[in-house]
Amino acid sequence: MAPELKPRDPTWEARIRNGFARQSFMATIGARIVALSPGMCELELPFRADLCQQHAYVHGGVIAAIADTSAGFAAATLMPADAAVLTVEFKINLIAPAEGERFRARGEIVRAGRTLTVVESEVSAEKDGTWRPVAQLLGTMMFLVGKGESPAPEEQP
Amino acid sequence: MAPELKPRDPTWEARIRNGFARQSFMATIGARIVALSPGMCELELPFRADLCQQHAYVHGGVIAAIADTSAGFAAATLMPADAAVLTVEFKINLIAPAEGERFRARGEIVRAGRTLTVVESEVSAEKDGTWRPVAQLLGTMMFLVGKGESPAPEEQP
Amino acid sequence: MAPELKPRDPTWEARIRNGFARQSFMATIGARIVALSPGMCELELPFRADLCQQHAYVHGGVIAAIADTSAGFAAATLMPADAAVLTVEFKINLIAPAEGERFRARGEIVRAGRTLTVVESEVSAEKDGTWRPVAQLLGTMMFLVGKGESPAPEEQP
Amino acid sequence: MAPELKPRDPTWEARIRNGFARQSFMATIGARIVALSPGMCELELPFRADLCQQHAYVHGGVIAAIADTSAGFAAATLMPADAAVLTVEFKINLIAPAEGERFRARGEIVRAGRTLTVVESEVSAEKDGTWRPVAQLLGTMMFLVGKGESPAPEEQP
Repeated sequence: MAPELKPRDPTWEARIRNGFARQSFMATIGARIVALSPGMCELELPFRADLCQQHAYVHGGVIAAIADTSAGFAAATLMPADAAVLTVEFKINLIAPAEGERFRARGEIVRAGRTLTVVESEVSAEKDGTWRPVAQLLGTMMFLVGKGESPAPEEQP
Repeated sequence: MAPELKPRDPTWEARIRNGFARQSFMATIGARIVALSPGMCELELPFRADLCQQHAYVHGGVIAAIADTSAGFAAATLMPADAAVLTVEFKINLIAPAEGERFRARGEIVRAGRTLTVVESEVSAEKDGTWRPVAQLLGTMMFLVGKGESPAPEEQP
Repeated sequence: MAPELKPRDPTWEARIRNGFARQSFMATIGARIVALSPGMCELELPFRADLCQQHAYVHGGVIAAIADTSAGFAAATLMPADAAVLTVEFKINLIAPAEGERFRARGEIVRAGRTLTVVESEVSAEKDGTWRPVAQLLGTMMFLVGKGESPAPEEQP
Repeated sequence: MAPELKPRDPTWEARIRNGFARQSFMATIGARIVALSPGMCELELPFRADLCQQHAYVHGGVIAAIADTSAGFAAATLMPADAAVLTVEFKINLIAPAEGERFRARGEIVRAGRTLTVVESEVSAEKDGTWRPVAQLLGTMMFLVGKGESPAPEEQP
């Protein structure tokens, strides 16, 4: 599927990097942006022993968090000026244990709409030099226009 | 929907509490079990400023993590001895900003099967003494029999 | 979860029954509304041999269709005058084979919002006098205000 | 994502075409297989006025049915001999109104596992000679080994 990928806000990249920097949870787990272009955002997360489930693989919730965030910022590359992006919902398949030295979540737009944007994200793990897929996300993001800085809860969604 | 809720392993509660204690990520974010019975597991998470997205609400990925975990342990209450529980997939709607002093995710079994268990979880937030729903999850958990301690990745799922 | 269930349009019931009557696919498969109240819509579908998959159970797509439709009309009970309701997305677990003489899909609102409404639907089958759950849906509906009669494709969603 | 796409049953194609031919609901709506290869199944559905919702677009349930079926048969290309394929669950985003003269659902494997297979399907509509995406599905299929001909309900899943 080939969406139109034209940023509407010339400051989109600065807004996204600033928004990501203010997500305290991304700093808490150690995720960072490694690639960013209109319609795409890729995050990287190094393995850490304090991010695991009981079998010492990275917790599915952490994988979901980077997948969701990569997808949300992929949508945000096309957001209007003074808009905020909310995750409406997502579905994720955890297709293999999250085992490896580092993880990448590549979020992309499936279809950009005026209010809603459909997104996907593929999460892969690198182990011993080989990348393997570990999760696949399909979700829905929403633009809240005029709420760029601080949407009030009662206004959402 | 009314599933049959009979634990198959008499040590189910100890196994679940032990499994939860070994999930390093749950300790990292500060979640704990506050209720547990056959077919149900409820987690509580106090608000912390380092778990947020850019609007100072708790990050959707954190909400998904506690919802997924509560649902997985709800399924695990009925797991056979020497089985492990994996999240196959889940879908979550983030229905309101995760704003509040603390959060609860209540996972429950929708339908218990031999291999797959369908689960749901409702996440609520307490703010100024009032609890409000913030997310709803519907997902699928899988029993891996004979893999209770350490499932090898190539065996999954 | 307890949403506010106050219809905004006094003609909501007539609009829903009229909208349902104009869904040719519901007539094609033989579904009808058997219960309707603010926030809830229940459909019934008798078994027919031409609605099946290869094992002579009702096709999962038919089950998804009545689940989606019941959920959409549940949301529509609260729609503003001159609005249309669209299915943004849904997720459905097919939890048992759709075997029986008739099927019911009960759609309900999980959370009513201004633009988006989160809905669920439970589908049950009656066989030999006993009702059993066969599917569970969680989805997202959208109001398109001012588009009550005939939304143009380019305006959606 | 690049799954291993090696059929395990040399009669896979005949089994799939036979299984599709026995899905009465696919005949009822007029869908047929237009492409089939290991890991992929594409269906085509001509527009018909009796398959619509109230705005004269094809009903989302019909779109979901062909998406689910294409994804299930994509998984089935790799099924063991004497296995049946069940839809465990799917999630679908309806990204544009299903308007056009005909529709195609292209199901593909995201990740093939021993018991579970993760699948996706893209549905497109042709209108005035142009194909546009209308839906995207992500789901989970299950092999029931030894149940190739007629799985009993109590054995599922």
